[in-house]
Amino acid sequence: MTTALLRSYVSGDWYTAPDEGRPVYDAVTGEEIARVSTTGLDVAAALDHARRVGGPALRELTFHQRAALLKAVGQYLREHREELYAASKRTGATLADSRFDVDGGIGVLLGYASKAKRELPDDTVYVEGTVEPLGKGGTFLGQHVLTPLRGVAVQINAFNFPVWGPLEKFAPAFLAGVPTLVKPATPTAALTAVLIERIVASGLLPEGSLQFAAGSLGDAFEHLTGQDLVAFTGSAATAQTLRGHPAIVRNSVRFTAEADSLNLAALGPDAGPGTEEFDLFVKTLTTEMTVKAGQKCTAIRRAFVPREHVDAVVDAASARLATVVVGAPDAEGVRMGALASLDQREEVRRSVKALADAGRIVFGDPDRVEVAGADADRGAFVSPLLLVGDPERAEPHEVEAFGPVATVLPYDSTAQLIDYAARGQGSLAGSIVSADPEFVREVVLGIAAFHGRLHVLNARDGGESTGHGSPLPQLVHGGPGRAGGGEEMGGIRGVLHHMQRTAIQADPDSLAAITGRWVAGAERRESDVHPFRKHLEELRPGDALVAGPRRVTRSDVEHFAEFTGDTFYAHMDEAAAAANPLFGQRVAHGYLVVSLAAGLFVDPDPGPVLANFGVDGLRFLTPVRFDDELTVTLTCKQITPRESAGYGEVRWDADVTRQDGESVARYDVLTLVAKKDGQ
Amino acid sequence: MTTALLRSYVSGDWYTAPDEGRPVYDAVTGEEIARVSTTGLDVAAALDHARRVGGPALRELTFHQRAALLKAVGQYLREHREELYAASKRTGATLADSRFDVDGGIGVLLGYASKAKRELPDDTVYVEGTVEPLGKGGTFLGQHVLTPLRGVAVQINAFNFPVWGPLEKFAPAFLAGVPTLVKPATPTAALTAVLIERIVASGLLPEGSLQFAAGSLGDAFEHLTGQDLVAFTGSAATAQTLRGHPAIVRNSVRFTAEADSLNLAALGPDAGPGTEEFDLFVKTLTTEMTVKAGQKCTAIRRAFVPREHVDAVVDAASARLATVVVGAPDAEGVRMGALASLDQREEVRRSVKALADAGRIVFGDPDRVEVAGADADRGAFVSPLLLVGDPERAEPHEVEAFGPVATVLPYDSTAQLIDYAARGQGSLAGSIVSADPEFVREVVLGIAAFHGRLHVLNARDGGESTGHGSPLPQLVHGGPGRAGGGEEMGGIRGVLHHMQRTAIQADPDSLAAITGRWVAGAERRESDVHPFRKHLEELRPGDALVAGPRRVTRSDVEHFAEFTGDTFYAHMDEAAAAANPLFGQRVAHGYLVVSLAAGLFVDPDPGPVLANFGVDGLRFLTPVRFDDELTVTLTCKQITPRESAGYGEVRWDADVTRQDGESVARYDVLTLVAKKDGQ
Repeated sequence: MTTALLRSYVSGDWYTAPDEGRPVYDAVTGEEIARVSTTGLDVAAALDHARRVGGPALRELTFHQRAALLKAVGQYLREHREELYAASKRTGATLADSRFDVDGGIGVLLGYASKAKRELPDDTVYVEGTVEPLGKGGTFLGQHVLTPLRGVAVQINAFNFPVWGPLEKFAPAFLAGVPTLVKPATPTAALTAVLIERIVASGLLPEGSLQFAAGSLGDAFEHLTGQDLVAFTGSAATAQTLRGHPAIVRNSVRFTAEADSLNLAALGPDAGPGTEEFDLFVKTLTTEMTVKAGQKCTAIRRAFVPREHVDAVVDAASARLATVVVGAPDAEGVRMGALASLDQREEVRRSVKALADAGRIVFGDPDRVEVAGADADRGAFVSPLLLVGDPERAEPHEVEAFGPVATVLPYDSTAQLIDYAARGQGSLAGSIVSADPEFVREVVLGIAAFHGRLHVLNARDGGESTGHGSPLPQLVHGGPGRAGGGEEMGGIRGVLHHMQRTAIQADPDSLAAITGRWVAGAERRESDVHPFRKHLEELRPGDALVAGPRRVTRSDVEHFAEFTGDTFYAHMDEAAAAANPLFGQRVAHGYLVVSLAAGLFVDPDPGPVLANFGVDGLRFLTPVRFDDELTVTLTCKQITPRESAGYGEVRWDADVTRQDGESVARYDVLTLVAKKDGQ
Repeated sequence: MTTALLRSYVSGDWYTAPDEGRPVYDAVTGEEIARVSTTGLDVAAALDHARRVGGPALRELTFHQRAALLKAVGQYLREHREELYAASKRTGATLADSRFDVDGGIGVLLGYASKAKRELPDDTVYVEGTVEPLGKGGTFLGQHVLTPLRGVAVQINAFNFPVWGPLEKFAPAFLAGVPTLVKPATPTAALTAVLIERIVASGLLPEGSLQFAAGSLGDAFEHLTGQDLVAFTGSAATAQTLRGHPAIVRNSVRFTAEADSLNLAALGPDAGPGTEEFDLFVKTLTTEMTVKAGQKCTAIRRAFVPREHVDAVVDAASARLATVVVGAPDAEGVRMGALASLDQREEVRRSVKALADAGRIVFGDPDRVEVAGADADRGAFVSPLLLVGDPERAEPHEVEAFGPVATVLPYDSTAQLIDYAARGQGSLAGSIVSADPEFVREVVLGIAAFHGRLHVLNARDGGESTGHGSPLPQLVHGGPGRAGGGEEMGGIRGVLHHMQRTAIQADPDSLAAITGRWVAGAERRESDVHPFRKHLEELRPGDALVAGPRRVTRSDVEHFAEFTGDTFYAHMDEAAAAANPLFGQRVAHGYLVVSLAAGLFVDPDPGPVLANFGVDGLRFLTPVRFDDELTVTLTCKQITPRESAGYGEVRWDADVTRQDGESVARYDVLTLVAKKDGQ
């Protein structure tokens, strides 16, 4: 039976290739489930559509508006996840595997949406780091800003995470304001196609912000410019071919690869049999082998174990693996499904043979497995396979069997463990299972340069750990060297990856105009209206108030000391204060200075200012001595409306000076200010 | 006359090739000044030496210790700069040019040293960003840390900055703890050789941290791994060849290129003849053309001018260029020296011919120039050349004449200017000369995605501006697309580029052990000794104090209001406070809460705590109501000794809770704490 061709979504429309395409098979039954082709697809036009339509539409939105759309898509997909689970089953995934992929992907959208609301401004420009003074007079300042690249994020996904993979790449690109072109991996393209159909059907996203080529990208790379990006997940070999593509090289196209690697887990010498850590290690190892049938780029391939505990680990792991039922994802009791394709199984068998040559198989048979609820010959089933290897041989550090396969490797000292770890030449993730902080410190600092992520597991965090194999949107995903050298996600870092960092050198007024934030030296506007009487929409960066002076007397200081209990010698003890190398005489409390400053700048009557919710970067710059007179200048610095609240955040610059104009304290005051209509 | 071969410095020794090498000529007289060869040089051994000797030695040092060495090298070079000026003259540079290169390079060392002391910890691990809570119970945390790559920074320099170039690449690598291998450009290798000889002679640097191949790198690339880095400055064509090298691609070697680009300057419509901005524009344009004879990657090649001001700009620029005396760097009155080589002059002439085909030369003759104090036929002299071009043609946006050459291009609207700017396909730097913040904002946000740096110039910052062409250590240097897609310097970013970012997931105690900092949830140690009585060396992260309770009464709040003048309605007005959506009733002042907390945790007697110099990240988390009882827990979080002072900085976590355990305020208290011996 010839099945339907998967459709691409490009240039605002669905596209079906005119030819028959290549078949995609059900991983469990071997049945053909769909066909894949992009013959005749105008990829250059799709890139152009993204640049002309998608990019401009996204750049119209603020980070917070993009975040709200991402959240809406996440919620929409959550309502439709049964449909995704159903398609996922045909890739060989159990329901637990599908949740990992589908719910994990939705979780990335929601996690990114919430992080963006908290950590990005409600604006279109990202201002990074602090203002750098470039001249003594304060008229020439430096500031890094990031703006969206004007191109397309071309995202090439691996077969093992047909939902999570595209979504974890899409979310940060979308937040950055950069349109996406998704290419799925052929064996699981049918599931990704369902995902994209759903998102397009939701009608939530601006046209051109998400496109989908259901098959080969054709000559897309030829059309890439220095404003485009490529994010690739898959084999190290393909990563190399793509990275070396002449157009990538010629145009300095940002290219990130996330390739499978020889990830490790290490059991600490403190964690022998009988300890909670030992059990956690064995459980982690066997879980990593069987979840998604071991088809995870992060899965543990090298299990380093103190030599004396090797037998115990092998016994305990084998006992657990023996309980794992392999078979059709929906058959009773099945814990591990099929590999994604029969080709994958051949590849795994080849790799296991190479590994077995440098060690021995201690659990499972690469050529035989009992299968529940399916035909073992037609589905891509394979047994979990545990080996014990010789860590002095190259194979355990170099050969990856991308399936339910791991090798136990003995080590004799921490230094040796660190040396072995490096032989993997760069990994995505590693777990150190130990309750000994000193061992953990030594290993982590010894192997971190070779890892994108390190997971420390012990009885203290075992209850909350999200596990070895779970990349999280908050943390970077990617590793050096063999792992591809890329970084995905990592919270806001992943968004910024899609933007161009530009160093701005300018006068304060120009810089304020560019960033939408007041900076020291820019124009201040004082008026008859106290800035605390202005609603959020009425305030402008630069609105300012100068208040004071207020004299600080000896009796103020003594009274404050008595009232608060803060009788620190620098305030109260003439002789000790004189001996202090920084003061030389008694000085006022810093907390008194900021309290008096608030007394000067606050407008007491009920009004739009709802609360002072914090203070940032307070520095006491010059001591305040008895009878100094304080003046405070309060300037509106940054206004961040909250999209779905009746108020927003306003950041004020507070500069407290004494009678000679010298700053004695400088800080940001954070307030919540009501919107005019209260919405 | 056969001159001496330049020596390489590798594997702890000087190396002279056994063959005759290639000659290098004086740019002014055409005389041979040195010969270059690395025949027989064992580059693989040099890389190995860096990895085995240099890297470990550097990683023993803290960031502050590396910074101190960098500063010492800078000071040493400053004492020997006459020697560098002398060698620089033979590259065709005037004294002003040499200062740009030599003093600029020394400035990078000193600037980086001082930035590292301020912004990096006195430690070997860099902790980036905040702790990410990964579970609700607080037992599983995420934190990004960076550790030095274990390889070598291979630095390939351009001929135009033989001192600044190597130093701006070396400084961040050295601070990161990564050893350097310097490759100079052949035409000016003799000057770089003097620089390296001086640094080696100083004996200041750990062996293996700086090596020098005085010529070709041979098969070095074949030996690179995923732990190595390549930083290249030079032509876009060479950048492509190197970036596509199989070993770079195969091992995901970090490769940065900084290539020359078609940088722009844009005159604003507000800045017509007679304005200060007009004069600044003309001065910047002609200066950029003539400094280093226009041989700067950042030099202005495209001068965008409102159509109506084109003639005025051409007239004013031509008048200035007419006063520029070209000739031998030390001849009387000479303002512009020679190009670096006769080959370079041929290249410039070829490019000018292409540019002239798409426009016309309005100043200078590519084949004729009057030369002071030198033989015009033997030296690589060329006249400043100003063209007017057609911005609709491709050439002005694509053809770079790497010499004293710029093209004036008319524009009619801001949108058109933005469109033209993008046709350069990525630039290192651009200048916008305008006093109109709105124009500046529109242009900057329109072209930032194509630029690594944008410089806004007007009467307000003209006095302090460091100019269009000066990359600064604080700011990123590098641009997208044609400019190479790299980022150098940029302050601490440049250091981190040489380190591996690793996401750590761990329990609080393990995380504290890894980072050397206390984190929430990690063990706290309370003892009979108040932590304020401990000297810097005696304190440990986790040392803690719990103090309280202290009741906050209505009369405390009213008294504080009266005393400080802070009679904000939320504290004083029953009805208004009740109407406040966040409080619902009268609450205590945030400043009162932190003042009382200080009263609780301060140890009043003279002791090692010298001062509270600031507060970071203060957040008021829950309102404090009348008769709430406050307790404060103060925990030592991070200890930063200052290498050259009798004290260090101690950061404390302050957590103020009320009777039910809820946190009401949380912040970092920053103190200076004396060392035991006062040194």
